[in-house]
Amino acid sequence: MPYVNIKVTEEGVTGEQKAQLIQGATDLLVRVLGKNPATTVVVIEEIPTDNWGIGGESITVRRARG
Amino acid sequence: MPYVNIKVTEEGVTGEQKAQLIQGATDLLVRVLGKNPATTVVVIEEIPTDNWGIGGESITVRRARG
Amino acid sequence: MPYVNIKVTEEGVTGEQKAQLIQGATDLLVRVLGKNPATTVVVIEEIPTDNWGIGGESITVRRARG
Amino acid sequence: MPYVNIKVTEEGVTGEQKAQLIQGATDLLVRVLGKNPATTVVVIEEIPTDNWGIGGESITVRRARG
Amino acid sequence: MPYVNIKVTEEGVTGEQKAQLIQGATDLLVRVLGKNPATTVVVIEEIPTDNWGIGGESITVRRARG
Amino acid sequence: MPYVNIKVTEEGVTGEQKAQLIQGATDLLVRVLGKNPATTVVVIEEIPTDNWGIGGESITVRRARG
Repeated sequence: MPYVNIKVTEEGVTGEQKAQLIQGATDLLVRVLGKNPATTVVVIEEIPTDNWGIGGESITVRRARG
Repeated sequence: MPYVNIKVTEEGVTGEQKAQLIQGATDLLVRVLGKNPATTVVVIEEIPTDNWGIGGESITVRRARG
Repeated sequence: MPYVNIKVTEEGVTGEQKAQLIQGATDLLVRVLGKNPATTVVVIEEIPTDNWGIGGESITVRRARG
Repeated sequence: MPYVNIKVTEEGVTGEQKAQLIQGATDLLVRVLGKNPATTVVVIEEIPTDNWGIGGESITVRRARG
Repeated sequence: MPYVNIKVTEEGVTGEQKAQLIQGATDLLVRVLGKNPATTVVVIEEIPTDNWGIGGESITVRRARG
Repeated sequence: MPYVNIKVTEEGVTGEQKAQLIQGATDLLVRVLGKNPATTVVVIEEIPTDNWGIGGESITVRRARG
């Protein structure tokens, strides 16, 4: 019954990559804790780079600075 | 002072349905725990079906398979 | 497939009250959005009153002031 | 290593305001707890007013009533 | 810079299992999205079985029924 | 009406420090976005160092290595 929430920056994550994240996170919970995949929920949230900060500044600013 | 976060798939939830979720969740906290509705916060988040996984695959894939 | 996260202050919520929150939140999603209860997840988190703030001060302080 | 999640209503928050929220939240964790800003993550989420409820009704409805 | 939040029921998860979840989730983000592990944050939350519901009832009740 | 969730490692955060985090986060939302402090909610969650990972390993392990 685990719930996994993955937050990443919104930068063109493809449907195929999302499918891999969902499968990989589910497999991880099955393998490490023996959880039932049928009730393992994975939710991916994509966050605009303006809205994600690290080191006190946004990813947008960090990317622009190079 | 409760905080309720409801995550559902993004599949045409109407304004009226959102209003019912907000009222219903608030009523539930008032009824069960005697909380003050004036400070009960409900946040609904709609998640694209590509970004929601259960059983190791996305809702998009499950819907397509029928 | 909804996911509902309920955060309340940690002030003696009983097992019976938690059961009512779980059933009530699940029923709400079934009734309003026609969701499948079998995959509706509800997670209740109890937060110490020192750790919950509103109006710029903790619930502990507000309770003490009466 | 703190993680700060700020949820606000989606009502024209500017890039400059987001930058101030990111810097301010990071500074707060550095000042109060001596955390390392380099690993302090801030994620801002903007929620449509239809999806945010308080007092049992949405912000959209509250705004309309004036 | 991803952030991964894993919620599981509080049922004796060992330090070794937590280490495997942290490493596995980090590796997943590196492998699928090429993220930098140094800024990939994983937070595991353990939820009492009374506080986790699925199918309208708590895990405690489901476990007791067998 | 903002909601701020601050997650930090569980390492002896005092009641006074929590009060400063609550006041500081509330002030930030008032100052930057003109939000109403009376409905600004701050929730602090303390996470055991075993349960917090960065760079693929737990804070417990990083602290032990020095």
